[in-house]
Amino acid sequence: MVKILNGKKLAQQLNEHTAQRVANLKAKGIVPGLAVVLVGEDPASMIYTRNKARQADKLGFKSILKKMPSTVTQDELLATIRQLNADPCIHGILVQEPLPDQINQSAVIETISPEKDVDGFNPINVGKLYANDGRHFPVACTPRGVMTMLEQYQIPVAGKDVVIIGRSRLVGKPLQALMINQNATVTMLHHASTDAEYYLKHADIVVVGIGKANFLHASDIKNGAVVIDVGINRDEQGHLVGDVDFDDVSSVASAITPVPGGVGPMTIATLMQQTVDLAEWSNQ
Amino acid sequence: MVKILNGKKLAQQLNEHTAQRVANLKAKGIVPGLAVVLVGEDPASMIYTRNKARQADKLGFKSILKKMPSTVTQDELLATIRQLNADPCIHGILVQEPLPDQINQSAVIETISPEKDVDGFNPINVGKLYANDGRHFPVACTPRGVMTMLEQYQIPVAGKDVVIIGRSRLVGKPLQALMINQNATVTMLHHASTDAEYYLKHADIVVVGIGKANFLHASDIKNGAVVIDVGINRDEQGHLVGDVDFDDVSSVASAITPVPGGVGPMTIATLMQQTVDLAEWSNQ
Repeated sequence: MVKILNGKKLAQQLNEHTAQRVANLKAKGIVPGLAVVLVGEDPASMIYTRNKARQADKLGFKSILKKMPSTVTQDELLATIRQLNADPCIHGILVQEPLPDQINQSAVIETISPEKDVDGFNPINVGKLYANDGRHFPVACTPRGVMTMLEQYQIPVAGKDVVIIGRSRLVGKPLQALMINQNATVTMLHHASTDAEYYLKHADIVVVGIGKANFLHASDIKNGAVVIDVGINRDEQGHLVGDVDFDDVSSVASAITPVPGGVGPMTIATLMQQTVDLAEWSNQ
Repeated sequence: MVKILNGKKLAQQLNEHTAQRVANLKAKGIVPGLAVVLVGEDPASMIYTRNKARQADKLGFKSILKKMPSTVTQDELLATIRQLNADPCIHGILVQEPLPDQINQSAVIETISPEKDVDGFNPINVGKLYANDGRHFPVACTPRGVMTMLEQYQIPVAGKDVVIIGRSRLVGKPLQALMINQNATVTMLHHASTDAEYYLKHADIVVVGIGKANFLHASDIKNGAVVIDVGINRDEQGHLVGDVDFDDVSSVASAITPVPGGVGPMTIATLMQQTVDLAEWSNQ
């Protein structure tokens, strides 16, 4: 019988814990501050940023939603980020992607102070993740949320064979680093991989995040594998679906995350958790 | 018949090319400058740093060898690095490891300006390697040298199954990133891996760098694999040997690097190449 990894419930528990930490900080006169920068009017981005700001408010943060027109110049955007870097009330800054063509994404990421880089995208924080030298640093929220889920469900990672499908900066690469740091044996598959089956059939844990609806089937994996679905797609009927054929894969997996209600809620709860981390670290 | 990948010869060719680039820079009034910082009197480190400084001299660089006593304080060492950061005649700075216990290695690495970080260890440069966004940045010299060897011998990497044994900051991790950026399918094995055989028997390219003499045998790999030996050890007779049982593995591999004369010479030639890269980039 497959176990459903309930991200919605876990996220709720994580949020309760975060709210408690916020209360502890407030008792010391510190209010965690999250700044979300939204450029343009992409409908999905507007929903995401609103949800993030709302969740921050709910947990007792100070939250700022900075809206900038899609015609904003690079200089204007970087100046806004620098203002937020200098603002002692703000502990986490995130700039919602995608950004318009005139904006250099790397410049944006590298302008956000590493100490306020709540998305964990700044190369300094990425480098610290790979160095794994035991210091505090923020990590991309989706992979960190995945690791929390596995931990909470007591699914061990050390010594396990892990396959990650997709090598994105946001998910695949940082997740690989987190997994290796926890002693997993990791293979990352991508469009140029020529023998995906060999790795997939051997994997104890499979993580998929490539944005292709119903990409992974029961016949792709080994019996009893744990399957983590990072995809969010709309099917032909307009329903939210992941990269995993859920019903099919559920027949052979030992555990699986649903979409919606799996990795998605963990990402936003991790963003909140990490904002409080940054607030605590900045006051240590 | 196994092909011997002759690192000594390739390094010589690379050095000739580097010397030509130095001449071109000098014609513009620029002399590449390499600063090597040696702390204490570790015999191996003394040999390494002397060799590096000598090679730099031979290629027409300005080279500085800064010797500091093993009792140096963290503040004194960082001050020296900051002076070198500020010196316009210096384009590359390396601090020879190992460092004495009173020195925080991460602080040293992060104090070296990313633009002069000729070893490619600064987290900013590591982060850029993982982001793979097409910009210039220095990379750890051993893995970069390995990639150059494969390229020069026209051994393709894209779509190939690669196994890297060892996950060090100096070799395994940056090599994995370079390989993934070139579309290889990479699995990194380490002491906690439980099923190394499954991956090794399938690998087109095997890279070993764990510092165990004669660790890899013919029976570990598949017929026709390419084997890259990053290890440097002394056997019972005091001879330099790699991590690969060379004679044994040569009977099944299609290509192999010897020790000495394989990866070692490429590392130092790559250090020279990268110093010139940094000098060119700083003058662009």
